[in-house]
Amino acid sequence: MKKYEEALDLHRELEGKLEVTVKAPIESKRDLSLVYSPGVAGPCLEIEQDPESIYDYTIKGHTVGVISNGTAVLGLGNIGAAASIPVMEGKAALFKRFGGVDAFPIVLDTEDPDEFVNAVKLMAGVFGGINLEDIAAPACFEIEDRLKEELDIPVFHDDQHGTAIVVAAGLLNASRLTGRELRDMKVVMNGAGAAGVAIAKLLLGFGVEQIIMCDTAGAIYEGRTERMNPMKESIAQATNPGRRSGSLADVIVGADVFIGVSAAGALTQDMVRSMAQEPIIFAMANPVPEIMPDEAKAAGARIVGTGRSDFPNQVNNILAFPGIFRGALSVRASEVNEEMKRAAAYAIADLIGRTALTDDRIIPDPFDVRVADAVTKSVAEAAVRTGVARKAPVKS
Amino acid sequence: MKKYEEALDLHRELEGKLEVTVKAPIESKRDLSLVYSPGVAGPCLEIEQDPESIYDYTIKGHTVGVISNGTAVLGLGNIGAAASIPVMEGKAALFKRFGGVDAFPIVLDTEDPDEFVNAVKLMAGVFGGINLEDIAAPACFEIEDRLKEELDIPVFHDDQHGTAIVVAAGLLNASRLTGRELRDMKVVMNGAGAAGVAIAKLLLGFGVEQIIMCDTAGAIYEGRTERMNPMKESIAQATNPGRRSGSLADVIVGADVFIGVSAAGALTQDMVRSMAQEPIIFAMANPVPEIMPDEAKAAGARIVGTGRSDFPNQVNNILAFPGIFRGALSVRASEVNEEMKRAAAYAIADLIGRTALTDDRIIPDPFDVRVADAVTKSVAEAAVRTGVARKAPVKS
Repeated sequence: MKKYEEALDLHRELEGKLEVTVKAPIESKRDLSLVYSPGVAGPCLEIEQDPESIYDYTIKGHTVGVISNGTAVLGLGNIGAAASIPVMEGKAALFKRFGGVDAFPIVLDTEDPDEFVNAVKLMAGVFGGINLEDIAAPACFEIEDRLKEELDIPVFHDDQHGTAIVVAAGLLNASRLTGRELRDMKVVMNGAGAAGVAIAKLLLGFGVEQIIMCDTAGAIYEGRTERMNPMKESIAQATNPGRRSGSLADVIVGADVFIGVSAAGALTQDMVRSMAQEPIIFAMANPVPEIMPDEAKAAGARIVGTGRSDFPNQVNNILAFPGIFRGALSVRASEVNEEMKRAAAYAIADLIGRTALTDDRIIPDPFDVRVADAVTKSVAEAAVRTGVARKAPVKS
Repeated sequence: MKKYEEALDLHRELEGKLEVTVKAPIESKRDLSLVYSPGVAGPCLEIEQDPESIYDYTIKGHTVGVISNGTAVLGLGNIGAAASIPVMEGKAALFKRFGGVDAFPIVLDTEDPDEFVNAVKLMAGVFGGINLEDIAAPACFEIEDRLKEELDIPVFHDDQHGTAIVVAAGLLNASRLTGRELRDMKVVMNGAGAAGVAIAKLLLGFGVEQIIMCDTAGAIYEGRTERMNPMKESIAQATNPGRRSGSLADVIVGADVFIGVSAAGALTQDMVRSMAQEPIIFAMANPVPEIMPDEAKAAGARIVGTGRSDFPNQVNNILAFPGIFRGALSVRASEVNEEMKRAAAYAIADLIGRTALTDDRIIPDPFDVRVADAVTKSVAEAAVRTGVARKAPVKS
């Protein structure tokens, strides 16, 4: 564990990364009578009479549950609920640091979607939003769909939609920089897991018409029988209008964009050479991308993004989730809908002025403090516009 | 709501009473790589290999879940999960303020013990202890019993045991002050709910042999058929060795101690006059006690305790739960057992030196800063002594 020594030391020294602190003074019997018995009966009775006032009197309006079962953790795979806690604490820390949102980590020790959904439904009361995290496909689709339907607060599987939003932001800027319209782009994707499916769906919403998604059995098309599942069926119907079959190498010929959420080395230089002129590459396998940026460039790629902070154009969810939840919470949105996701992608893309765009700067820096504010504002406005807000936005 | 105006203002102004704050700096990409990807994989892998190391690398070792379903809230009754959140936040605030323990409120929207137990089991990973709160009898007994059996962390229904521990502390000091031995005391209780049952059980553990518990149908005795339930059956077997029947007024004649967890006005002056000389009264109905202290004194009572902060000898759970959980967490105890509860009661009682004891001071002030430390130390020692500690106590 030499490699992780510093991180281990930090975690051991701090005994975890979060603390639950108290905002109200409790120094006298009078204080006690306000924050606890008997005064606390006041807010309780108000909420009993007017359920919506829970947002006025409790932490709900600014608190998110970061909930996982540890079945698809970062590059670690299915390490189980308990071992995933450091990641969920980290995520909660990022919510606070980048979005000013209070977040608490919850891990559920189950791989059964029913049990997961039921537990989250039972415990949702204190949370103003649910950030699902690191849940393996295909369970993540069912879990998110059911929770979205059954809860009246935003439910958002960040591994899917956070990644999708930042990729979309990058692609928007790549289109501006290269003068290619999204609707004309030929996009080939590799990896049909949680993130891949979400990226495809979001890009469809942006008007990208030519998407072919590949999995380990090659291109997914309507009528394919091998290794299908309900999610891939729906992808097959929504993408690949020409019903092209074949391997990644077959279908990538002539493509403008490659988007990889698959595995190290999945994209070769020969494949890049077979793409259209000056192709755009998002190679997001972690920690080793589908192709290394220098290799992609040497094979003719114009713009390369990865998941790594040590290369340009990092696709980092930090750019999305803090502002998305802050924006949704600020207007008490009942969900994060497609228009809110698109608004977030535009906000991220627009942060880099058109004259400041370069091949190595299509995605803002994760520490750019303007990002979360911009995303918050756009997401809140989109929530109001689409009628899912239960409160007017605060004037800034 | 005039009565609660100040509490409502405070809650509205603060938007709840808790905040989740971040202990690790996140100011650079390097920081980010330690608290989140890729460094966070270090602690994850350690925990996967050595489950016990979860205490070293996460918040578990100092974090408690304050979990309720809102079915028996303070004096409010069954107001439901959502409306109980202000109380759970308040409890969490007290954990931090008085015990230095991080606590997070969770409300479960169910009255079904099975659902409750399953949800808590699934989500227990991040918590080092579970403080059950404001759950109605008899469900609270089943919920606590099952969770104690199925989880390897302390599970403690504070409404039962917190109250019992502070009453026992008061009774210990009352016995010292009046020269009466616990085992010789005749104790009559009124109210067979969650707290009443826990008090009776704890006093039995202290060697009190003569306890008669009454409910609305009068004294509970072995063989009674009216309004019994499994919990009352077990009480009937463990108490009232003379199998006395009759009303509270009948069985209280000659008693040394009255303990009420029932309803306003349940104890009359005539009943007090029928008790033994200089009786001891704990009248804990809230907000109006079974008998007002001045009336009890006028009828001959020597020592009177209530649940109220505006009278002497307040039976306040704050004296118990922060130190109990801090003590249990400090040695990674797998449970809070009877000896730990008795140790807590002795620690609270012993804080008032024998020469400082007076009729109006048998229970320490809730703001006495020494209480939580003393309880912590005694509880940790008792955990080690009884073999439920998984870690040696920190030398102070």
